[in-house]
Amino acid sequence: MAIEGKDTVQTRPIRLGMVGGGKDAFIGAVHRIAARIDGAYDLVAGALSSTPEKALESGRALGLKEDRIYGSFEEMAKREARLKDGIEAVAIVTPNHMHYPAAKEFLKRGIHVICDKPLTSTLADAKKFVKAAESSDALFFLTHNYTGYPMVRQAREMVASGDLGTIRVVQVEYPQDWLTVEQHNKQADWRTDPARTGLGGSTGDIGTHAYNLACFITGQSAESLAADLQSFVPGRQVDDNGHVMLRYASGARGMLWCSQVAPGNENNLKIRIYGDKAGLEWHQEDPNYLHYTPFGKPKQLLTRGGAGMLDSIASATRVPPGHPEGYLEGFANLYKDAADAIRAHQSGKDASSLVPGITDGLAGVRFVDACVRSSAKNAAWVKLDG
Amino acid sequence: MAIEGKDTVQTRPIRLGMVGGGKDAFIGAVHRIAARIDGAYDLVAGALSSTPEKALESGRALGLKEDRIYGSFEEMAKREARLKDGIEAVAIVTPNHMHYPAAKEFLKRGIHVICDKPLTSTLADAKKFVKAAESSDALFFLTHNYTGYPMVRQAREMVASGDLGTIRVVQVEYPQDWLTVEQHNKQADWRTDPARTGLGGSTGDIGTHAYNLACFITGQSAESLAADLQSFVPGRQVDDNGHVMLRYASGARGMLWCSQVAPGNENNLKIRIYGDKAGLEWHQEDPNYLHYTPFGKPKQLLTRGGAGMLDSIASATRVPPGHPEGYLEGFANLYKDAADAIRAHQSGKDASSLVPGITDGLAGVRFVDACVRSSAKNAAWVKLDG
Amino acid sequence: MAIEGKDTVQTRPIRLGMVGGGKDAFIGAVHRIAARIDGAYDLVAGALSSTPEKALESGRALGLKEDRIYGSFEEMAKREARLKDGIEAVAIVTPNHMHYPAAKEFLKRGIHVICDKPLTSTLADAKKFVKAAESSDALFFLTHNYTGYPMVRQAREMVASGDLGTIRVVQVEYPQDWLTVEQHNKQADWRTDPARTGLGGSTGDIGTHAYNLACFITGQSAESLAADLQSFVPGRQVDDNGHVMLRYASGARGMLWCSQVAPGNENNLKIRIYGDKAGLEWHQEDPNYLHYTPFGKPKQLLTRGGAGMLDSIASATRVPPGHPEGYLEGFANLYKDAADAIRAHQSGKDASSLVPGITDGLAGVRFVDACVRSSAKNAAWVKLDG
Amino acid sequence: MAIEGKDTVQTRPIRLGMVGGGKDAFIGAVHRIAARIDGAYDLVAGALSSTPEKALESGRALGLKEDRIYGSFEEMAKREARLKDGIEAVAIVTPNHMHYPAAKEFLKRGIHVICDKPLTSTLADAKKFVKAAESSDALFFLTHNYTGYPMVRQAREMVASGDLGTIRVVQVEYPQDWLTVEQHNKQADWRTDPARTGLGGSTGDIGTHAYNLACFITGQSAESLAADLQSFVPGRQVDDNGHVMLRYASGARGMLWCSQVAPGNENNLKIRIYGDKAGLEWHQEDPNYLHYTPFGKPKQLLTRGGAGMLDSIASATRVPPGHPEGYLEGFANLYKDAADAIRAHQSGKDASSLVPGITDGLAGVRFVDACVRSSAKNAAWVKLDG
Repeated sequence: MAIEGKDTVQTRPIRLGMVGGGKDAFIGAVHRIAARIDGAYDLVAGALSSTPEKALESGRALGLKEDRIYGSFEEMAKREARLKDGIEAVAIVTPNHMHYPAAKEFLKRGIHVICDKPLTSTLADAKKFVKAAESSDALFFLTHNYTGYPMVRQAREMVASGDLGTIRVVQVEYPQDWLTVEQHNKQADWRTDPARTGLGGSTGDIGTHAYNLACFITGQSAESLAADLQSFVPGRQVDDNGHVMLRYASGARGMLWCSQVAPGNENNLKIRIYGDKAGLEWHQEDPNYLHYTPFGKPKQLLTRGGAGMLDSIASATRVPPGHPEGYLEGFANLYKDAADAIRAHQSGKDASSLVPGITDGLAGVRFVDACVRSSAKNAAWVKLDG
Repeated sequence: MAIEGKDTVQTRPIRLGMVGGGKDAFIGAVHRIAARIDGAYDLVAGALSSTPEKALESGRALGLKEDRIYGSFEEMAKREARLKDGIEAVAIVTPNHMHYPAAKEFLKRGIHVICDKPLTSTLADAKKFVKAAESSDALFFLTHNYTGYPMVRQAREMVASGDLGTIRVVQVEYPQDWLTVEQHNKQADWRTDPARTGLGGSTGDIGTHAYNLACFITGQSAESLAADLQSFVPGRQVDDNGHVMLRYASGARGMLWCSQVAPGNENNLKIRIYGDKAGLEWHQEDPNYLHYTPFGKPKQLLTRGGAGMLDSIASATRVPPGHPEGYLEGFANLYKDAADAIRAHQSGKDASSLVPGITDGLAGVRFVDACVRSSAKNAAWVKLDG
Repeated sequence: MAIEGKDTVQTRPIRLGMVGGGKDAFIGAVHRIAARIDGAYDLVAGALSSTPEKALESGRALGLKEDRIYGSFEEMAKREARLKDGIEAVAIVTPNHMHYPAAKEFLKRGIHVICDKPLTSTLADAKKFVKAAESSDALFFLTHNYTGYPMVRQAREMVASGDLGTIRVVQVEYPQDWLTVEQHNKQADWRTDPARTGLGGSTGDIGTHAYNLACFITGQSAESLAADLQSFVPGRQVDDNGHVMLRYASGARGMLWCSQVAPGNENNLKIRIYGDKAGLEWHQEDPNYLHYTPFGKPKQLLTRGGAGMLDSIASATRVPPGHPEGYLEGFANLYKDAADAIRAHQSGKDASSLVPGITDGLAGVRFVDACVRSSAKNAAWVKLDG
Repeated sequence: MAIEGKDTVQTRPIRLGMVGGGKDAFIGAVHRIAARIDGAYDLVAGALSSTPEKALESGRALGLKEDRIYGSFEEMAKREARLKDGIEAVAIVTPNHMHYPAAKEFLKRGIHVICDKPLTSTLADAKKFVKAAESSDALFFLTHNYTGYPMVRQAREMVASGDLGTIRVVQVEYPQDWLTVEQHNKQADWRTDPARTGLGGSTGDIGTHAYNLACFITGQSAESLAADLQSFVPGRQVDDNGHVMLRYASGARGMLWCSQVAPGNENNLKIRIYGDKAGLEWHQEDPNYLHYTPFGKPKQLLTRGGAGMLDSIASATRVPPGHPEGYLEGFANLYKDAADAIRAHQSGKDASSLVPGITDGLAGVRFVDACVRSSAKNAAWVKLDG
């Protein structure tokens, strides 16, 4: 509870490039702030848009040097790989269908990849992606950013250490409301276009986050599921609401709900996990709290940095308890951990980290694929690796 | 927002009998308090236990006259029906399997019945019950007591008046934790014995409440469901956790979760309903609030008695806003409405009310039956009236 | 955490009379429900209004026999004292200035008095009241009803048992909003008329509740205070907002805020108490929770009936954890405890109880008097017994 | 509600120096992160500690060039002022008593100053500080960082636009618990030493934040106050708890509570403001919400980025609604606004901003001074400018 602050110091920041994330993009800006918070990266190159003028304009606005602003990711990968001070890592923040094509260009040249989720828009691409990542010496990080929240990591450790006993029930949900009515803007357009977002709509965009969070905290994965997907808004080509029942390999059972048509929900990701000894509950919109309910004892409210927070979590938080951290700090934890891993890799040390990787990415695409297959069979039960 | 109190006055209370509810019973005591709150009933007779000594002891403890303490409900029904000042209504608060045998004795003698839920422990009994109720001139009330909460009634009216638009998604859940480990006491014993509670465990005990609440507020009923039921505690013969996906006749979709093994949950019944115009959220443990979220407008917190409460709800509340009402007051609303309906019936007037009745009771048993059938088929989709 | 219900059984209810509480009254109706909940009283007589026709009409509406409906409390006291089955106790629910004149008539005839708060509208009356109560053999109860909430009683016990260590800081507040603008109705009229309510407005009506709650839980009383009282609404003759700093005899310091002009506050009584070992927080609008924060340990949320509730509190609650109790149940606890005390007194046993009495009543009037004196001296510090 | 992200782009970041903030410092790290988030500053020089070795070690750890690591702020001010690419602004993050001596060296050389609060440890210094700032062409910013939270700025605008009507009551509090027991560490030591922190303890450290927040939102300042200050922990030389009543020039009345001995409170700054039309409530620990309660209408929960947020606030937020922002983002808003003001100043444009300045700093010291004077007179009322 002492009040002390921390900022990670880096005598030489990692040279970072970015694919996607031009003007008007949402997630590119988030990645850039996340990379900046701990001073561990320098953004030095970009192929920020598939439209040349926009790529140029966006690169200049970000202060990139003219010769490091590229019109395509292929060009950027080729040239940067040859530069003496070329990028060491690249952030890929395009629509889903471009993740794999872009990433493979960097992976094959030994440039580390930090990629937005979901891994790909198709299962076929995901399988190829796994091969590309496995055959590269470079590291691969997938920004399932909610895993960066300190109290999420605390939850994971508490489950791992047996505080909950045997896990029985996993309830996770991610409702939003922004697609309650028909929307036409950059963000809505690609997210509701099967060609760019993939067959899953809400399942791919936010359902994968929810599923990843459940797997991250419990250390388990689902064996089968039954998914009842809907497209409530007339004319919408992908699901905007998904109800899913899950059976985990361990015998635990779960529900998952994702929705983009639930008025009053902004980014209302919540997870509740129940074992035979205790329960845990965490809300993304109030992320500094973790509700811990040991059976037969008083309910506890654990706070980030407060009494009850595990020592191992301390490095994932920057300010004292009661001074809230949010989405960007959680996201920054992934960038910070990736930077540590990249430094370790460069020094020939163990480069493992808590940041989700290619396996988690494949699991996420399998989840979406299974949801879509189940739904096509009238919500019958299907295997995830079917 | 004026501060004023109300107590319903009754120049002559209704003479009430009770079946079940002897010493150590939970729900019998609740029914008696609910009946007393508005002074609308006098408890004058009882067959409070199937064990004669306990029936006698319990009757005396409640101040009943010796000749109105009965050893069996048959005896009570027969004699009270002949008395000049015999009971006008009877409360049936036995374990589930005895609801029908007891109720039919009173219904056929024209004595109004206020019966605890679920209607019966089997679907066969439920169908017979419907016939018995329909062929009687007496009124039948089923105490799905959560429908008595003022803000639940407000939610129902808001849905009916179109405030939410077309209903798309219905999320309801009722987790508890008291059966997380093996339990042996009066309450646990009959609730985990299929012979007395029925084939459904948590589904029958609390899942029916959740399903009834969803139907009550939305005015809809489910057409089909898929239920994944578990008995997590070794040796337990009925489900202690149920995951259910529902398809409503209107096209709305829903999830229902009931659990008795979720540590940290006491009686954590919650419902969230989303239409194309707005959402509503209500929590039984904080029942004086209703969260109303019109799409694209600020979130509203409606309070019992406060600004935004509909005038039509005023009669269901007894104290000013900010002075919380709870479980007993909600329960008492059912007794008060039943008393009004009985008085109306006695005067030859319209005896309709908001209190759930025989049709709702059958729907509840169909829900449990469908859950059990689905679960037996590996959680396949089944029709509720299949 | 077992689910069991309780209703106190009384083979012979106590015969109760009522002074005040006629048609349109708020608190009279509350007292009647509170008296009914546990079946421990029979309302058999009343002087319900100072207007004869209204007294008669109100008495009939409550089902009183014609000869027990009185036009004045003097008449009622005299006649009931002579009746063989006359009232054993009387509830006094008039405006403040009539509490003493009414109560003394019953006290001197040995009829137990249950009186609404504050004790009187003047300190002079309060001192006479103390004498009248002390010279009577009858019991006197003052309905500072918030002391009846189970979690308030738990807080008191936790402080007494040293869970908080030495008390340092006591923050209590009771904001409302109903007098934000000028109001004219029965409730507002007498509460803003110095002749009927006393010199204190919000201080007398709700400030006394807040002060009583602080004293009840901490077991302490204030030695001096500085009060800055305001009448924000033009033309209002009594305070509608009060800011008070308090010094307790023990060395603890406190603040008290009462207001009737704070939009958004219904009956938002809250108390927070901090010792050198732990803190406690309780909110009247969510009364089933008690926040317990031992220094250097995780925050705990104690729930009525849940893990952490003291065994000694069990008799003050009627339904299982998670089934909320509210204002009426808390109020009913005072009536139940008073009934137990009256029965004990009638049997020559110890009649002490947790219900506030004449000493608490005097303390409350001294608090209001000190606030008004301080405010008249430009909010200077004054002694409470000055 | 569209999802879009923003990161301010700066083609050339402002060159920043820092005084204080060496290893183990809390607030220095916070300032550095805040400066980095939007990429608007480059930290290029520092006099990070008064201990030469620590200054050097800290400067290296932050990647500063050797010749820009200084042993004293005087040296840094002199040399940087002469450099062609010398610092344009300096952040001063020392203990309170060094703010003025350090700042004046930069101000007189035209280097903009971003200074931590409170302005000074004595009123005499504060008055000299005002002169130094007013006679300099450079800009002065005081990091009362809570004013950077978007919903705080929204509150200010709502008050200014009349949404609350005439302000009547201002309740503000800032309790912590970290000094509940005696503490010895870097942070505690200087904060409890009158020579470094000033005469006020909790009043200076956090009470000033609370007072500043009240003034910032309401646009008002206090005329007089009565303060009852305590040092509960034996041996402590400055106050660790303060109870204050305030009278604002407009006629509004307020309370302020600051405490460092309230177990369970981390940084629990809260403010509630009531006018004759509506109320507002904001909690620092849950800063993305603003509770708005128009009298006689449903309560509203406004969310950062959500429906109801004013357009003018949009530039103070970086991620979509439901993705929480926290302490660092609020702090970063001050740095961003200061950067914009510095750029404007350099271009000869209007350099006004929402960031608190020298006048606010003086007001804060006057507040502490008045608290200490009042307390010394047994908590009598004193004028703030007395």
